[in-house]
Amino acid sequence: MSAADRLQALRIVLVAPSHPGNIGAAARAMLTMGLARLVLVRPRRFPDPEAIALASGATDVLDRAEVVATLDAAIAGCVAAVGLSARPREFAGRVLAVREAAAEAIAHAAHGDVALVFGTEMSGLSNAELAHCGIVATIPSNADYASLNLAAAVQVVAYELRVAATGGEVWRAPKFRPATVDEIEALYAHGTATLAAMRFLDPRMPKRLLPRLRRLFSRAAPEKEEVNILRGILARVDQLLSRR
Amino acid sequence: MSAADRLQALRIVLVAPSHPGNIGAAARAMLTMGLARLVLVRPRRFPDPEAIALASGATDVLDRAEVVATLDAAIAGCVAAVGLSARPREFAGRVLAVREAAAEAIAHAAHGDVALVFGTEMSGLSNAELAHCGIVATIPSNADYASLNLAAAVQVVAYELRVAATGGEVWRAPKFRPATVDEIEALYAHGTATLAAMRFLDPRMPKRLLPRLRRLFSRAAPEKEEVNILRGILARVDQLLSRR
Repeated sequence: MSAADRLQALRIVLVAPSHPGNIGAAARAMLTMGLARLVLVRPRRFPDPEAIALASGATDVLDRAEVVATLDAAIAGCVAAVGLSARPREFAGRVLAVREAAAEAIAHAAHGDVALVFGTEMSGLSNAELAHCGIVATIPSNADYASLNLAAAVQVVAYELRVAATGGEVWRAPKFRPATVDEIEALYAHGTATLAAMRFLDPRMPKRLLPRLRRLFSRAAPEKEEVNILRGILARVDQLLSRR
Repeated sequence: MSAADRLQALRIVLVAPSHPGNIGAAARAMLTMGLARLVLVRPRRFPDPEAIALASGATDVLDRAEVVATLDAAIAGCVAAVGLSARPREFAGRVLAVREAAAEAIAHAAHGDVALVFGTEMSGLSNAELAHCGIVATIPSNADYASLNLAAAVQVVAYELRVAATGGEVWRAPKFRPATVDEIEALYAHGTATLAAMRFLDPRMPKRLLPRLRRLFSRAAPEKEEVNILRGILARVDQLLSRR
């Protein structure tokens, strides 16, 4: 089962959201991470132009959003439900940091739909609502100001779900051809000669200069083109020295 | 050096943000994760009532925000600068996923200030700006819709920085007193007797019922109080059976 399939098995459930802007921003946050299925339980205002404005191109997610009357209807048919809670609850069952909860959600998603359930902006999920969720997830936050915006919480959860599903693939700069060992040794030899000619290096007492330079360049792992540039600089110094 | 001290050493730098609402939402995202130092390079509008509205209680971060004219001024004095980029760049140096970049930033924060640099809403950081950042960080995202809102990106980065600094501590439900082995064995004995009396279990051919029940309850790790509740239910069944 592909990572994309697992992400498609996830439902983001917003219980009684007050602000349509948050619904739109949540849709945008979802789509940036490859999530598409949004379920709204008794939204105060939906559909709404503010939701569309904040969705910024993720209007497909809004168009396909389901509106239901109860949390039970929102999580019906799921193999697991994860409820988000910022504040401690006495009777919460398994409480996991969002990273662990995301890993469990993605594991469950191989077997069926999984719901991630978010409460209202003002007070989160009620204890009764949270009791419907087998897993309670919490986002690490500043105890003095744990006021994550609803869409911001959806963004963090969706991000962790994507990383759990895909391993967190990211773009990398293109690889250019690395210099060979011979080319790098020739660079060091050239550099040593030029530094000696500049009287920056005393070949009889080199001290730690050359090992330090080798250390620097080995960390940088120079490419062919870069070795050519550095040798060009050295050659220019050689030329200036020979003219004096 | 404490986690809080390391978080205090971090600067969030927004280069030329267009929308004051994003500045406010970024301030809120920062404070939820324990970050406080915001630096704005040529903001289009700041201060602004929309920034205050979106900061929702994190106005301290806005009040203390520094406004500077250049990226160089914003990152002056830092031991490291991390630039965010959603799109691939040919000449980017070290490109890390945001999780790895956060770990490096927190390691550097033991030695001095570290800047996390975000570009404009429309086009991100220019190549010239990104060249000022020794580390390029990227947030894993949906290749077909990588349009993270600026404040959402700040939220994900701040979250990863907090997890890197603190280890991701979260609240846990209070621990009640676990049942002892003797109490749990007494529960199983009671349950076995009652299930036999109910003729649900044939003691001469128990098959896999009892091992399955043991497996279930061992996963649940029952507390004292819970064992008492279960034995109360069994006692009630016993009572009903004896009345027949």
